[in-house]
Formats: sequence, C-alpha cells, structure tokens
Amino acid sequence: MRKQRTYLVIVLLVLMPCQTLLAQRATWIWYPGDFDIWLANKMQNRRTERGIFFPVFWKMDSHYVLMDFHKTVQLLHPDTVSIYAEGEYNVKLDGRALEGSPQQVIVPAGQHRINIKVFSQAVVPSVFVRGKTIVSDSSWLVTFEDKEWIDETGKTSDISATRWQHAGSWNFYSPLQKPSAFRLPTQKKRAVSIERHQQSLLVDFGKETFGFIQLHGLKGKGRLSVYYGESKEEALSADHCETLDRLDLNTAIKKDSTLPLSKAFRYVQVQYDGTISIDSVSMLYEYADVTPRGSFTCSDTAINKIYDVAKYTFSLNTREFFIDGIKRDRWVWSGDAYQSFLMNYYLFFDEPTVTRTLAALRGKDPVTAHINTIMDYTFYWFLGIYDYYQYTGNRQFIEQNYDRMKSLMEYCLGRRNQQGLMEGLPGDWVFVDWAQGLSKKGALSFEQVLLARGLETMALCAGIAGDRKGEASYRQLSGELRKKIFSLYWNDNKQALVHSYAHGRQTETVTRYSNMFAIFFNYFNETQKQAVRQSVLLNPSVQKITTPYMRFYELEALCAMGEQKHVLEEIKNYWGGMLRLGATSFWEEYDPAKQGTEHYAMYGREFGKSLCHAWGAGPLYLMGKYYLGVKPVSPGYASYLVTPELGGLQWMQGSVPTPAGTIDMYVTKEQVRIQAPAGLGILRIKSRVLPAGENVSAKRIGQEEYEIAINPATPYTIHYQALK
Amino acid sequence: MRKQRTYLVIVLLVLMPCQTLLAQRATWIWYPGDFDIWLANKMQNRRTERGIFFPVFWKMDSHYVLMDFHKTVQLLHPDTVSIYAEGEYNVKLDGRALEGSPQQVIVPAGQHRINIKVFSQAVVPSVFVRGKTIVSDSSWLVTFEDKEWIDETGKTSDISATRWQHAGSWNFYSPLQKPSAFRLPTQKKRAVSIERHQQSLLVDFGKETFGFIQLHGLKGKGRLSVYYGESKEEALSADHCETLDRLDLNTAIKKDSTLPLSKAFRYVQVQYDGTISIDSVSMLYEYADVTPRGSFTCSDTAINKIYDVAKYTFSLNTREFFIDGIKRDRWVWSGDAYQSFLMNYYLFFDEPTVTRTLAALRGKDPVTAHINTIMDYTFYWFLGIYDYYQYTGNRQFIEQNYDRMKSLMEYCLGRRNQQGLMEGLPGDWVFVDWAQGLSKKGALSFEQVLLARGLETMALCAGIAGDRKGEASYRQLSGELRKKIFSLYWNDNKQALVHSYAHGRQTETVTRYSNMFAIFFNYFNETQKQAVRQSVLLNPSVQKITTPYMRFYELEALCAMGEQKHVLEEIKNYWGGMLRLGATSFWEEYDPAKQGTEHYAMYGREFGKSLCHAWGAGPLYLMGKYYLGVKPVSPGYASYLVTPELGGLQWMQGSVPTPAGTIDMYVTKEQVRIQAPAGLGILRIKSRVLPAGENVSAKRIGQEEYEIAINPATPYTIHYQALK
Repeated sequence: MRKQRTYLVIVLLVLMPCQTLLAQRATWIWYPGDFDIWLANKMQNRRTERGIFFPVFWKMDSHYVLMDFHKTVQLLHPDTVSIYAEGEYNVKLDGRALEGSPQQVIVPAGQHRINIKVFSQAVVPSVFVRGKTIVSDSSWLVTFEDKEWIDETGKTSDISATRWQHAGSWNFYSPLQKPSAFRLPTQKKRAVSIERHQQSLLVDFGKETFGFIQLHGLKGKGRLSVYYGESKEEALSADHCETLDRLDLNTAIKKDSTLPLSKAFRYVQVQYDGTISIDSVSMLYEYADVTPRGSFTCSDTAINKIYDVAKYTFSLNTREFFIDGIKRDRWVWSGDAYQSFLMNYYLFFDEPTVTRTLAALRGKDPVTAHINTIMDYTFYWFLGIYDYYQYTGNRQFIEQNYDRMKSLMEYCLGRRNQQGLMEGLPGDWVFVDWAQGLSKKGALSFEQVLLARGLETMALCAGIAGDRKGEASYRQLSGELRKKIFSLYWNDNKQALVHSYAHGRQTETVTRYSNMFAIFFNYFNETQKQAVRQSVLLNPSVQKITTPYMRFYELEALCAMGEQKHVLEEIKNYWGGMLRLGATSFWEEYDPAKQGTEHYAMYGREFGKSLCHAWGAGPLYLMGKYYLGVKPVSPGYASYLVTPELGGLQWMQGSVPTPAGTIDMYVTKEQVRIQAPAGLGILRIKSRVLPAGENVSAKRIGQEEYEIAINPATPYTIHYQALK
Repeated sequence: MRKQRTYLVIVLLVLMPCQTLLAQRATWIWYPGDFDIWLANKMQNRRTERGIFFPVFWKMDSHYVLMDFHKTVQLLHPDTVSIYAEGEYNVKLDGRALEGSPQQVIVPAGQHRINIKVFSQAVVPSVFVRGKTIVSDSSWLVTFEDKEWIDETGKTSDISATRWQHAGSWNFYSPLQKPSAFRLPTQKKRAVSIERHQQSLLVDFGKETFGFIQLHGLKGKGRLSVYYGESKEEALSADHCETLDRLDLNTAIKKDSTLPLSKAFRYVQVQYDGTISIDSVSMLYEYADVTPRGSFTCSDTAINKIYDVAKYTFSLNTREFFIDGIKRDRWVWSGDAYQSFLMNYYLFFDEPTVTRTLAALRGKDPVTAHINTIMDYTFYWFLGIYDYYQYTGNRQFIEQNYDRMKSLMEYCLGRRNQQGLMEGLPGDWVFVDWAQGLSKKGALSFEQVLLARGLETMALCAGIAGDRKGEASYRQLSGELRKKIFSLYWNDNKQALVHSYAHGRQTETVTRYSNMFAIFFNYFNETQKQAVRQSVLLNPSVQKITTPYMRFYELEALCAMGEQKHVLEEIKNYWGGMLRLGATSFWEEYDPAKQGTEHYAMYGREFGKSLCHAWGAGPLYLMGKYYLGVKPVSPGYASYLVTPELGGLQWMQGSVPTPAGTIDMYVTKEQVRIQAPAGLGILRIKSRVLPAGENVSAKRIGQEEYEIAINPATPYTIHYQALK
C-alpha cells in the first residue's frame, strides 16, 4: 500500500505543474472581436497604390473605448497580483476602488470580485493580470456597459441586466507583449540575383515573396525609387508597376535603410539619381506564425508541384487575417476569406485566423451596408460560420456572435423585393464573379441559393444560442426560400436553374453559379443533379469560368458528383498552365487563351492582376476533402467520413488536421492505411472485394461499396481492390 | 451719373472683402457629431475621485475612423489649395488620386470634384483646406461609407445611395489649431489669502472657482498632497475631501509645477513632508470662451445678487459641454443639460455648446441603454431638441440627427409594457429626482408625460426631415398617450395626476412632478390647472422638493400660472438661503432644515454634495422667460411674445438674446421700454388704461389686457398703468 501511495504522489507531482501552467497562463484580454476589428483597420489601411494611401470603401468600425473586466475568484491563500493595462484604468476589489492605478494588488484569501475598468481611444482597452493563481484569460468577463449605478442610498450596485461576454484573447502571454504592438514576425532573406545597371539595380528574389526591402550601403544625394514587380516586366515598368516607394537621400556616410511598408514582389527595380550609390539589396520576409498540419503527396509529380505552390500561395495570403492577395488590396474580402477558411481546415487548421477574419468582416452594429458592400459576400460570411462550427465544434464563438448574426440577417431580410427575393438595391454590389457580360439585373438565382444556406446557418446557430423562436423562424424561412428557388428558377427544358428572374419571369440565360452551389449544398434531387451535370457542368456552351475563385466551386461540384478523375485533369491543365508560364504562386485570374504579358493585366491596368491570390490555392481544399476524402459529419470531427478517391492516381498520402490531431492516410489501389486521433470515423470505400484487415469489419452499403468503422488511436491497414 | 457710379464702386470695394472673408473662412471640418463624441469621451474620463480614475458607467461611442470629405467647386481661375489633415489621407481630383498625401494641390479653372479621404483611430479624422476660393467649411459633404466601387470595367463610380452629410465644424480657423489639440482657455489668478502652518498651507481663492493649481518655488524631497475643498472644511479634511492630488518630489533647486488636471475648489490645502518647502500657490482659471448676451437687474438687490451668482454658477458649469457640476462628476447628464439649454437661451445663447452636448449625449447607434442609463434622461434629450428648434430655428441639426432620434424613440417604444406605458426594466434607472422614499415601482405618470412630449418632438422633427409617414404616426402615438395619461392617472377626488400605476390600478400617492410638467406642457384644461394649483402646487402636504433641479420646474409651473409674486419670494427664500450660508455658487441640493456642515454631505459622504451645480442657476431662466417674459412663438424668434411681469418689483431691466440680436427691455409700473432686432413681436401687457406711446397701437384682448405689435429695430416706449 505504501509504495502505491508514493507512486501516486509522484504522478501528481509530475502532472500538476503542467496542469497549473495550462490552466493558469496569463494572457492579454479584451472585448471579444475588438482587437480583430482594430487590427483589421490597421492592416487594411496599409494598402497603397503607386505610393498613394488607399483605404477601404466601406464603413470601418472601432473598438469599444471603455471596458470593464471582471472576475470572481476563490482563494485559499492571499495572492499578489500584477496588473498591466493598455489605457487609463482603475481597479475595484469587491466593489471598492483602490487608490491610483495600482500595478500591484494583494487579494486576500476567500471569495473576491475584481473589476478593472479601462479607457482607451487609440488602441483596444486590454489588461494583463498575473498572480500566483489569479491570471487574466478567457474565463474573465467583459462588458462595455456594466450598468452599475449609484442608487438613492449612495451605494453602487450591479445589475443583472448587464450583458457580460467572455474576454477575447490570442497569444500575448507576456506583459511586455502589448496587443497594440503586435507585428507579424520577419526573417532576413537574400536576393537570388542582382543585375547592376547605370543608376539602377534589378533584384530577383527567385519567387513571389512578401516583406520589407532593405537597402544596404546607401550614400550620396538624390532621389531613390523602388519599383516592385510580381513579374520582371512590372518591376521594370516605373510608370505602370502597382506599388513603389520613394526616398529622398542626403548622406555622406553609408547607411542601411529598411522601407517602412511591407510589399509583395519577386523582382524589385531600384532606380536612383544624383550622387547616390548603393551596395546591395535584401529583404525582411514577413509571415504569419502558423504551422501547416495538413499535407498531400501522390504519384503525380505535376499535382505535387501544384499542391506545393498552392500551399506557398496560401501561406503568403495568410497574414494578420486571410487576405485576398498580397500585392494590391491586401484587404479582408468575405468571398475570398470564405475559401481561405476551407483551405485552412485542410492545411493549418488555425482557428484564431478564422475567427479573427470573421470578426473583422462583420464589424459592429448598426449594419449600414453589405459586407465589403457586396451582397454575396454577406452570405458567404454566414456560410463561413456554418463551416467553422462544422470543422471546429466551437460553440463559444457562435454564442458570442449570434446577436451580430441576427442583425446582419435582419438587414438582408429587410431588403428583399416583393417576391421575397434578394435583388441589388442602390449601393449594393452584386458581384458573383469577374466574368465578361454577366448580368446582375433582377434577382439572381445564385444570390437566393446563398441566402437559403445563410438562413440554414441562422437556424443552426439560433439553436446553439438557445433562441428557439429564432430557430423555428429561420428554419421556416429557409424552407420556403428553397421551394421558391425551384418554383421560380428551375427550367425543365434547360434542365437547370436559370441565371435570374426579372420583370416577372425567368431570363433565358443559364450560368454555372447557382447550379454548382445547389449541387454541393444538396439542394437538387438525384435526377436533377445528374441532369445538371450534363446540361451545365460539362456543357461547353455555358459560359466558361476564368477565375480560380469560381473554378474552386466548379471543381468542388464535380468532385461531389464523383468526377475526381476529370477534375484531376482540369487541375493539371488549369493550375499546371500557370506553372508552365513560370508562376511561383497562383493568380487572381488565368485565361489560357491569353499570351505573354497579357496575363499580367486586369482592371484595365497593365499589371493590375494579382499573381499571388488566396483563391488560387483551391487544390489544397480539393485534395484534402475530395481525394483523401476527409470531412466532418458532426461538429468538430466528433464523427467524420473518409471517402478516398484516387481519381486516377497510383497512390496518395497525406494528413488532414482535426481539433484533436491529424488523420493520416496512405492510399493505393489495393490498400488504405489510416490512423485517426479521436472521434467516430467511417471509411467509405469502393472495392471489387470485401475489404479486410486486422480489426477491420467492413459493412456492405451498396454494390461494390463498403463502410468500415475507424476507432481513434488505432492504426488500420485495409486491403481492398479499387474499381478502376 | 459719373459720381454716383464712383460711389457704388467704393461701396463694393468696401463691402466685398468682408463678404469674401465671411463666406470663405476656412475651418477644420469633420463628420457632424464626431468631434463632440470624441471630446466628451476625453472630458468625461477626466473625473477622479480621491485620485482614482472614475469613468462613466454607460456605453461610450467613438468617431468614425475613416472619412471621405467632398466638395464640387466651380472656379473662374485656377486655385492653389493647401491641405492639412488629422490622420493619414489621400486626395482625389475628379476621381483621380494624386501622388502621396499632397499638402498643396492646384485645382484648374472650371468645375471640379475634390475628395479627401482620411483615416484616424486615435483622434477624429478632420481636414483643413484653404485656397483663394476653395476653403473647407460646412458646405463640404462627408460620409463614412462612400460606397464608390470598382466595377467590372475597372472604373470607380459614385453611387447615388451614398448618405452624405454636411460637415461639422466649430471655430478652428487656423491650420495650426488642430481639433485634437483643443483645450479650454486659461487665465492666471491669485489667491485671496494663504494661511501658513507647519508643513501645510491653506489657500483661499475667495469664491468657488475651477482650474489648475500652480505650486511656486517648490524645493526639497518628500511627498506633497493637495486637498481640494469647495468649503474650508472639505479642504481641511485630508481623509474625506472629494478630490486630491499627490506629488513625489526630489529637487534641489526651486521649481514651479502646474498640476495636470483642472479641479473645482474655493479652498486648497497643500500638505507636505520631508524637506519640502514652497513659496506660494496660485491657479490657472479654466473657462469656456462664451459671452453673456442676456442680462437682468431690478429694484431688489437680493434678486440681483441671486442672478449674479446664478450667472457665475452657470458659467463655471458651461465648459466643453454643459456639465452637471464642476467638482464631482463633471459629466454630461441629460436631465441637467436640458435645464442648462434653457438657461443658455437666456444668458449666452451659445448654439455650439447646445448641439455639442446633444450630440455627445446621444452617441451613436445601436441604442443599448437609456441616455446616462436613465429613462427620464432619454426623454429630456428629445425635449432639448424641441426647445433648440424653437429658440434657434436651426433645421440642419434636426435633419442631421433625425435618424438617431428615430432609433432612440424606437428603443423606447420597444420597451413599453402591456398597457403601452414606460416602466423601469432591468438596467433602467428611473430617476425623477433625489427625494426621500420616492417610489419608482410601476409606471410613473411623470415618465409618461415626458414620453408624450418626446413623441410630439418626434412628430415635429419628422415634419422637418420630410418623413410624412413618421410625422403622422408620432402625432397619433402622442395623442393616444395623452388620452391614456388622463384616463389612467387623473384622480377626481385628489384633483391631480397620481404618482404611478401599478398592479392594474392607480397608487394613492400624489407627487408634484407630473402635475407641474403637465401645467407648462399645457396638458391640463383650465379647470384642471386651477385645481392642481391648490391641490398640488400650493399644497404643503404634498412632498416638498429639495433640489434646485426640480425647484426649477416647480417655479416654472407657478410662473406659467401667473404666480410671479409668490415665486419671487420663493427665489429669495430658497436661493437667498444658500447665499446667507455663504454660498458663492449654487448647490446641487439645499434643505433649509439642515445645519452647518450637514449642508455639505450627500450620497452618504461628508463632502459628497456639489456646491456648484448647473441646475442651481435656474433663476437665469425664470427671470428671462417669466419676468422679462420673452419667449419665441415660432422657431428662431421669427415671431415671439413679450409678457413682462414685475411680480412685485419696482422696476426691472434686461436683455434676452435671440438669433438676430438681443431684445432689450426696461420695465416699471408705468412704462415699458423695448427694442427688438428682428421678427414679429407681440407685447402683451396688463394695464388699467389703454397703453400709449409713439408708434404704439394697443389692441384690447381681455379685461385690462392689451397687445402691442413690436416691429424690429424700432425703440418703443409704452406708457401704461400696472394693475397692482
């Protein structure tokens, strides 16, 4: 007995410090979403166009300037607590204000209530509190209107109507690491080659990159210009490159200079006049500190190359937020972000970048316009939340944001036309896609399909937030809208949803958009789905898609119908096409019909096109979800489905991240090896024979189709025989 | 002919430069209301309680951080324009962005569109533009969401849905006078006496004052404390004075120090330890730069003294905004501000301080609580707008704020109980008055009376804003509520409105509040009014009012019923009572039954009471409106009524400001002298004989009552014979 007890004590001694560290790590805290909005304002206003400040063209919101942080603690021993704040502050212990703005407070043993009230206009009010047991973390509550008041008897009292929220935080674990001082990390990088000309240099960094240009050994007097290029042509075009910097110099001794704004480039042309001389040029590579957890390799080296470049493209566009592209806007666009969320679930599975992006996009009430002013982008925001819950199972974000979801949906519903359809009103941008001649007139089927899904999201989240009435009402609204979509837009002759409804009737045009979304939203019945495959998806007379943005959904729809083989070829043609043109990252738009520098033009500008655009990285998502075939079935991968599809590959290998760890797979035509960390997995596999293996019990669910239960932490090797 | 032409030319030469100056004076501009909100945040967060930062306990709003300023100009000649901004900015000329953030722009002749877009998180985005003809002023338009976008053709286009507003401005007429650097002016003042003790000084400034304490000739090492007192007792009470400052000192050579926060005091005790020595103490008096335009003197020196102290009290409380009191809160409280507006119309007639206070109180959408969390204070805000329009005739402020009025009223209407009455919900503070044992349970008649007037304000402003539907609906709501007030609260036995309605029936209590407001809102019929005079106003068994705050309305109700003689005695007793106790400014509360230092206590604190409270200055309003008897009948004094009432005085003399200038009067029992600057005035006068005088044509309107039309710019002397 004695020995056993000693053993137990040892275990406790070993485990407890870790536990303590985990549960009690102090972090800077703030009102949830406020740091995200503040940081987005800062980041998005870094856009410049040829040296001109270029801010967004929609309402920017701001953090709450006055905040009350609150925690009730239960102490066995007195605790000496250090307090740090961004802003002016006071501290109350059990409702009594302490003198000054104390940096140290002794909290006696017993139950105590701590309130810290902070005012800050320029940066987000935030606090960092660290004692032996009391630490600031997301268990603290915050409110921007604590509603305590001085009543007639002169006492202050707390009111139950106070709307407390759990504090927001990220990863600022040191008192010195002030949230307002946040910057992405950087890393020195050298150029691959530097060409010297008379009073100019052409610097090549070997591939698309992002960061701060450093000029070394600068000397002399005159003006120096830096012209950035994603292509060599752009860097050499002083008159038409999209971004540039200018420096007026007058120095007799050599000095180094780091330019203040980080930029996207592969090439940089440095031009100078007067007596200026310069030794060399390097860069500080600026990046987000996120780690890839997903992976994919296969028997096809072209696909492997595409996957790698997609990964690089997506990494460059994963910054403070998921941005559209690194050269031009560098803004948070909801439609672009929505795809980034999906890619992220198969590469980084970084939750904070998702929630930060969602919070920044939504901003605050009142809603005065669509997100980014774009109707479809408002709907994507709802879809992003739907997926976020599905992939992560995190209810807190939804509970905290349900009110803002509701008010945004109210805004939408208040703008329906007489038929109950969303149609562009003055001030609304109906985007859909960059496509020649695409009509935005009337009520587009595409927008209604997105709204229907948005309403389904609302019903789901109303349930999570405990709003039963809302849940029922959103459920009904989405059901009605889905019926209406088919009664108004479905055309039996065309066997498709038509593009729009205007002046009381269907228009003649069929486009791919609503049809492909209706496929993977599962809005079609099986007959319609098969018909749409031929009448729309594989029909060359329906207008072709030229952006990777909509290619993403087009290929997803095809994959959802089992067209992995066809899609693999499409990926090799389309994304491979960019690589054959020398791309080192994927583009905003790619039209194989164009020639040479035509590829760089867009928006009527010679180098207007972004050559490193997040939506160009779609294969990351397709490979994980439709080839490895992993997707959650219930929130946070509590249960999930694995339906590997080689799509013509000899073998593939990869990992798909989940909240509990990665699902690792290796698939050939004869074998599936799989190991999963948690949750109830089902492997669904097509095989000529009954799949077999140690601990494998396959259930037949159709002709040559089987299901095998995957238990966590057990590695499985399944022997089977692929159909083709 | 020739001579005449020369004469004309001279006139033009003389007049034109002035005209040019007036029409084209550049001023800093911003989004209307934003500077006000920003400045209120700054000012209100200067409150300290015994050295502890003491911010407000309601939601603080913020300025819009991204702003587009816009002006279309028509130029005969090119204009070189200088541009200054608070924030990062860009400049567009006819939609084309200019390089960098230009400080000078040449605008060619012809029609041109200028846009300046500014981002600023810490301070309000604002610009100052000055050319020969182009200058920034309130004719510029601003928006926080310009809704221009890049359309498919790559062009940016303006959208008609853009909600432009006229720019806000104040009096910042120099590029160096940045709005964010605004501070009230100061003036050096010396102490009246300094008592020296061992290691302490007691400094007396002779009367209540406000400003920064200056310590002269400080030397030595140790800690120095400054204890502020509105009374000598408070300054001498290191442990209980409401405000204090502490300084840690270590200096071998003498130096001067100005304390960083301005405070209210008459007395200051300076205590120090260690080796500290000090030569003397003075102050920088801090004040608002507004000029009294109204005045009142009369045959009664006690009343003259009361008027002067009221004027001083009100001047001290007129700062960046109309605040409650200078010692403690220094906040913008809506109920307090409402009275200040009324006093202001009879003293400074300073419009900017009114609109700034209204804007700061309202803040921004969404509405999440009552103004200052107090239900009645929300209603006073509407009343303040009603009066503002009546006194100034300024429609622009109403047009600009109508949306915010609407959303605040929607918030109220959404919180009515099943009977359609406003009743305190969790989080609401139902204030009414500081009065012992006053019940706040159920639905108070007082709150419904204020809401009815608020709804009338909404109807009026809906009309001004061109919202015909809203106008009709608010008209109907106010009519219904007024009926309901009488059906639910009027008690025939008591001949009064009862205090409240709870559990489906009238309560037994009668209080003065709803009854006196119903008098000057004219909600009673004549019979009810006369009954209420006896049953409530002059009935000593109805709970007495002890705050100057509600005394204000009580005396107004009596004046509205012709009780000027009685009210004059009340003023002499009540306000005179404070003076007899040595007051140099009027108090937050005064109960003649209290003794000695009891007068200084409130909120359970020894020196909790404010001895310089804006609502103490009520006589300013009563003298102007009910003795001189001047009030507008149509907005902005386009027409007005003058009903002088000596109320027992031998003579009175004074001026009442209007938008066009002052109405100057001198009144005895035999003579009224009056001169008015503009508008259609009616002098209504009681006389035993037919009033007569040069250009005077009196019309008899009742027994011994006459009306005389007052034309602008003509001085009138009217001979009459007062009734008593």
